Amino acid sequence: MENKYRMLEIKAPNIKHLFEPKSIAIIGASSNRNKIGYKVVDNIVASGYQGKIYPVNPKGGTILDSKVYTSIESIDDTIDLATICVPAKYVFDSLKSCAKKKTKFVSIITSGFSEIGNLEGEEELVNFARENGMRLLGPNIFGIFSAKAPVNATFGYKHIEPGSVAIVTQSGALGVAMIGKTATEGIGLSAIVSVGNKCDIDEADLIEYFITDDNTRVILLYIEGLKRGNRLTQVLEKATKIKPVIIIKSGRSKRGAMAAASHTGSLAGADNVFTDIISRQVGALRALSVQEALNWAKFLAIQKSLPVGENAVIVTNGGGIGVLATDACELYGVTLYDNREVLKEIFSPVTPSFGSTKNPVDITGQASNEIYEQALQAALDSPDIHSVIVLGCETAIFSADQLAAVVQRRYLDDKPDKPVVFSFFGGGEFEQGLFALKSKGVPIFSDVYEAASCLGALYKHYHNIINTDDELSELDDPEIDIKSIQTVIDEVRADNRRFLLVPEALRVMNAAGIPTPKSYVAKDLEEVIYYAEEVVKYPVVMKIVSKDIIHKSDAGGVALDLENRDELLDAYEAILASARKYKPDAKIEGVEIVRMINMNEAMETIIGARIDNTFGPTVMFGLGGIYVEVLKDVAFRAVPIKRSDAIEMIQQIRSYPLLLGVRGEEAKDIGGCIDIILRLSKIIQLCKDISDIEINPVLVFEQNQGVLAVDTRILLNP
Amino acid sequence: MENKYRMLEIKAPNIKHLFEPKSIAIIGASSNRNKIGYKVVDNIVASGYQGKIYPVNPKGGTILDSKVYTSIESIDDTIDLATICVPAKYVFDSLKSCAKKKTKFVSIITSGFSEIGNLEGEEELVNFARENGMRLLGPNIFGIFSAKAPVNATFGYKHIEPGSVAIVTQSGALGVAMIGKTATEGIGLSAIVSVGNKCDIDEADLIEYFITDDNTRVILLYIEGLKRGNRLTQVLEKATKIKPVIIIKSGRSKRGAMAAASHTGSLAGADNVFTDIISRQVGALRALSVQEALNWAKFLAIQKSLPVGENAVIVTNGGGIGVLATDACELYGVTLYDNREVLKEIFSPVTPSFGSTKNPVDITGQASNEIYEQALQAALDSPDIHSVIVLGCETAIFSADQLAAVVQRRYLDDKPDKPVVFSFFGGGEFEQGLFALKSKGVPIFSDVYEAASCLGALYKHYHNIINTDDELSELDDPEIDIKSIQTVIDEVRADNRRFLLVPEALRVMNAAGIPTPKSYVAKDLEEVIYYAEEVVKYPVVMKIVSKDIIHKSDAGGVALDLENRDELLDAYEAILASARKYKPDAKIEGVEIVRMINMNEAMETIIGARIDNTFGPTVMFGLGGIYVEVLKDVAFRAVPIKRSDAIEMIQQIRSYPLLLGVRGEEAKDIGGCIDIILRLSKIIQLCKDISDIEINPVLVFEQNQGVLAVDTRILLNP
Repeated sequence: MENKYRMLEIKAPNIKHLFEPKSIAIIGASSNRNKIGYKVVDNIVASGYQGKIYPVNPKGGTILDSKVYTSIESIDDTIDLATICVPAKYVFDSLKSCAKKKTKFVSIITSGFSEIGNLEGEEELVNFARENGMRLLGPNIFGIFSAKAPVNATFGYKHIEPGSVAIVTQSGALGVAMIGKTATEGIGLSAIVSVGNKCDIDEADLIEYFITDDNTRVILLYIEGLKRGNRLTQVLEKATKIKPVIIIKSGRSKRGAMAAASHTGSLAGADNVFTDIISRQVGALRALSVQEALNWAKFLAIQKSLPVGENAVIVTNGGGIGVLATDACELYGVTLYDNREVLKEIFSPVTPSFGSTKNPVDITGQASNEIYEQALQAALDSPDIHSVIVLGCETAIFSADQLAAVVQRRYLDDKPDKPVVFSFFGGGEFEQGLFALKSKGVPIFSDVYEAASCLGALYKHYHNIINTDDELSELDDPEIDIKSIQTVIDEVRADNRRFLLVPEALRVMNAAGIPTPKSYVAKDLEEVIYYAEEVVKYPVVMKIVSKDIIHKSDAGGVALDLENRDELLDAYEAILASARKYKPDAKIEGVEIVRMINMNEAMETIIGARIDNTFGPTVMFGLGGIYVEVLKDVAFRAVPIKRSDAIEMIQQIRSYPLLLGVRGEEAKDIGGCIDIILRLSKIIQLCKDISDIEINPVLVFEQNQGVLAVDTRILLNP
Repeated sequence: MENKYRMLEIKAPNIKHLFEPKSIAIIGASSNRNKIGYKVVDNIVASGYQGKIYPVNPKGGTILDSKVYTSIESIDDTIDLATICVPAKYVFDSLKSCAKKKTKFVSIITSGFSEIGNLEGEEELVNFARENGMRLLGPNIFGIFSAKAPVNATFGYKHIEPGSVAIVTQSGALGVAMIGKTATEGIGLSAIVSVGNKCDIDEADLIEYFITDDNTRVILLYIEGLKRGNRLTQVLEKATKIKPVIIIKSGRSKRGAMAAASHTGSLAGADNVFTDIISRQVGALRALSVQEALNWAKFLAIQKSLPVGENAVIVTNGGGIGVLATDACELYGVTLYDNREVLKEIFSPVTPSFGSTKNPVDITGQASNEIYEQALQAALDSPDIHSVIVLGCETAIFSADQLAAVVQRRYLDDKPDKPVVFSFFGGGEFEQGLFALKSKGVPIFSDVYEAASCLGALYKHYHNIINTDDELSELDDPEIDIKSIQTVIDEVRADNRRFLLVPEALRVMNAAGIPTPKSYVAKDLEEVIYYAEEVVKYPVVMKIVSKDIIHKSDAGGVALDLENRDELLDAYEAILASARKYKPDAKIEGVEIVRMINMNEAMETIIGARIDNTFGPTVMFGLGGIYVEVLKDVAFRAVPIKRSDAIEMIQQIRSYPLLLGVRGEEAKDIGGCIDIILRLSKIIQLCKDISDIEINPVLVFEQNQGVLAVDTRILLNP
């Protein structure tokens, strides 16, 4: 799929023409007001579109003063955007006609394709479009609105409020409803695009446009399933460093994922992989609910700039909501400023003795509107405070009107250069008086959790931005002998296998520069001593080597934990004697000398790389055995990864403290783990034949004592 | 504290007099409209209170047509409820006067006691009240409203809408604001009580009243810290089996807990202990935010009856919100009905071919109001469906008015006997049209997560109720030799110690019937053979026993893993020889023979019992070492516990699958763990001297192979 896409890009039209088309054909235009074909024309006209409008219908005539063309071919113009709303069976013919007119983009509103199992019909469309340099939106969508053109080529709301939030939605019904909802909430849209079955254009293509679109300050995606998660990852990696990207991904739960799959036909994928890659690795802001996403979008869109630091301060007239907000800040990753001296200096003039200048700053229920204003002003003026959470419970002292005037003066008029969120809680008159400010663009919420959640989203975006320059974020490029790995793969292919045998996997590990337990076959006593004392070093394990002896232990052919020359000599003698006794005619090649591993000194980890159905090449890390299997304590990332990604994925697992050493143990060799993750990342990216590598266990010794890939399983693609 | 409280109950007045007082004195009544002393009188009069009102102020005169008494003593009546709003320094004198009038309850609105560190002042009040059979509410509160009287003895809102939700709040500011908020949300109150510093009356006392109060259908608590968590636990245990109890507990986060402690002076306690005991063990419904709590309260209050079963069905016109709702149902513990045959039969008449009769039932965006009504009706009519989640996205086909009419007919008029929640999402007109139904009592939410959360709360309450008859919920009463344990404790006390030595702890374990590794001292070879072969059985460990040899290993006095008589005899000889060589003059008493434990067959767990600062006697269970220390994978319960509690706490830990056996291992002896938990529960409850017992590790062998308390640490109270 990746390749197909690249092939396409060579002759694909610039995505700008989709958002700023000079001409639009509406194929299936209708004069029947109840038909989609009418609504689309009506919406385009009503949106003040300045380009050419070409309604197409075999019946001809006019629709809303526009001449109706009886066929696409009869239009004497090239078409930037064609919107198709004819029945499914006529779509392919319409597409063929579009190609003749060198149409750049085709928005297929019509449903009845992959979403009902008609995969062939959809594939036919895509293949034809690719051959003819056209790009397709949909099918099964409500269309596209772009504030830049402006053009509303949807069959949804006639009026869409222009603004700075771009929405991409996989669900049509939710998308149309979101147009209404955003308008009510005072969220203007720079664009809303329905992607439906995503047969060609998907979120990644659209985000690429939104990155460069000056109108767009925030990108919001509603996703049910991904087709090309790897491309989305790459594009998001760029996008989140520039603009906040909010994602609602449904199908979080097992049953929800099943429902999403049956509803959209796209793979939901494991939710923990999605979270790790999309949220942790590339920094998209994942909202739980639609309401949360809209809260964030509105709040982020009105920010003039990023905060200049982490220090958030809560100012409250109620201790209770102050504590609730403190909890919420911890939940959403907002750091509360802690310098008591500075806080005291700032807030003691406005805080009564029974209040608190600690953060949360409690100016108490006896604070008048004047005190409130002074406290807010003090917080806004202090360079040590970088963001403010203003809380208010209704009290007898407060007047909603006067409080609203405070907010008007200090927030709307003064336009402070630091982020502020407000949460006011009380009865209808109180809240209504204050919530009227919402329509003026003040971020006010009834619940403190909603307010803190918005600030948390802003800080997550802030971290994306400030971490950009991280010196660790350079791509590491470990040296790997890809050619030797390919030789192994070729041999396995020649043998008609998809799995590698143990020695083959070992050769791959060696070529990858990943340490494995070294094994040496000694042919005589002299070699035994040499390997044990000079190469492997005590303590060692000795094993008989003979093709005729399979079960070495049964033959008395294994000696563990040999710690000195005496034990070594005794063991050599004993093993040879036992083997001869066990199978007198066995041909004995020698003994294998390997390192004796003390499991008390090593920690088992699992490091893997695989081609994920959704995200393509990925790496994973977890602590050994039960941690991964039972506790699902494992981290994923999409490749290529940076060193900082590898560090983050190790730090992310709950059992991470075990690697740092508990109960006075030494820290383990985390650097060795990072190195293996980076090496597997490179292999899974470059060796297209490999679908799966799992090293289980990777033994991790104490710091600077290295790691050992003990058992490696490698699978090839079919 | 527990004892003090009991002492009090002997002569304490019935809590009913607080909620249904026949006479109220307002001490500090004022004719100044800006004073609390005026507002309280005004509110009492305005609430239509039918009993006697006695304002008290040395100035005399009248307030709102009531005669003002110049002193409490001059009132010629007994007082059920006195409300004190004089300055802090006069409160104790007022209380003394109240005692003379045989006042039953005193509501101390005045602040300036423990919340600002004035612990002595508060203690003085409590001690005096107890000696005089009075009970105190507060101090530092806004008062009490009771719909039953009716009486509004607060200085908050004048009008409080009566209804069926009882609120107890530790935060005054939040409480007053909640009065306003609940009115706006259409939530009527049966009572709202401000408990403030909780010097005497606390949540438990009030819940006891609400359990029996017919007006109260739902109890809602806002808690920042607990003083007597054990009593709250006991009362909640009863209450949640009768009425839903919703709890907002702030101070969930570490920093939030600190803020709560400095703000209220009460202990927040560890949040995981709170969650385990209050939510899991006794079944209170813990809300994250105030908004969530109010949503639940409103929804639960309007339910006529419990659902008759678990089968929830989602009916939606949008696939997207259907998937979101599915996720939300999993999050909130709502079980989606799964019988596809039955669902198909019910819903295929109303579902187009491109929709889905699977759950979520997707009647598609093309569903008209009529189809919507039919689908809803079908869900309501089916006896196989026990609750319904109705979702709607705004579409061109829907009219908000008509949809509202459907809800009116099918929900408000028909009054279905199963729970229904609605979530409608769209623009202002659409939502406004539908949300108008809110004021009529229809549970409608904009976000599907809010809707599912309400149904989840109802189902949690449902589980409290249906699990009442559980046969496992009988209290187990393991046989324990408390007398012998007391003997040990007396010896330790006599020795002026607070910790038990190893042999003492072993004696406690034996008296408790908890198995420990058996140890036998053999004085000669004959006894060595007898213990090793007849009693302990191979493999065994042998250790030198001599008061003169402390470091047994250093003296060569330990032999592990002896598997047969040869090894036993060799070891005996070697140990004696080494010991003699190590310390020639040592007096050797013999050798100790104990069982050799193969750690591969056993799993380490930690089982403990302690007096928690907040909850009193508690038990804990976790898997050994790192699971508890690093992963914090541990469960707590308040004692006494039932067998079902012990089972649930074991099942609750994330590493529970390890006890069931992973990778083909045998299941471990979970019954043995349950037994120890129950025994420790009984000990910590009955042996008041013990503050702490931690058995670490308890080795758990395979099923029916038992458990062993290897190392036990016991501490006594100071």
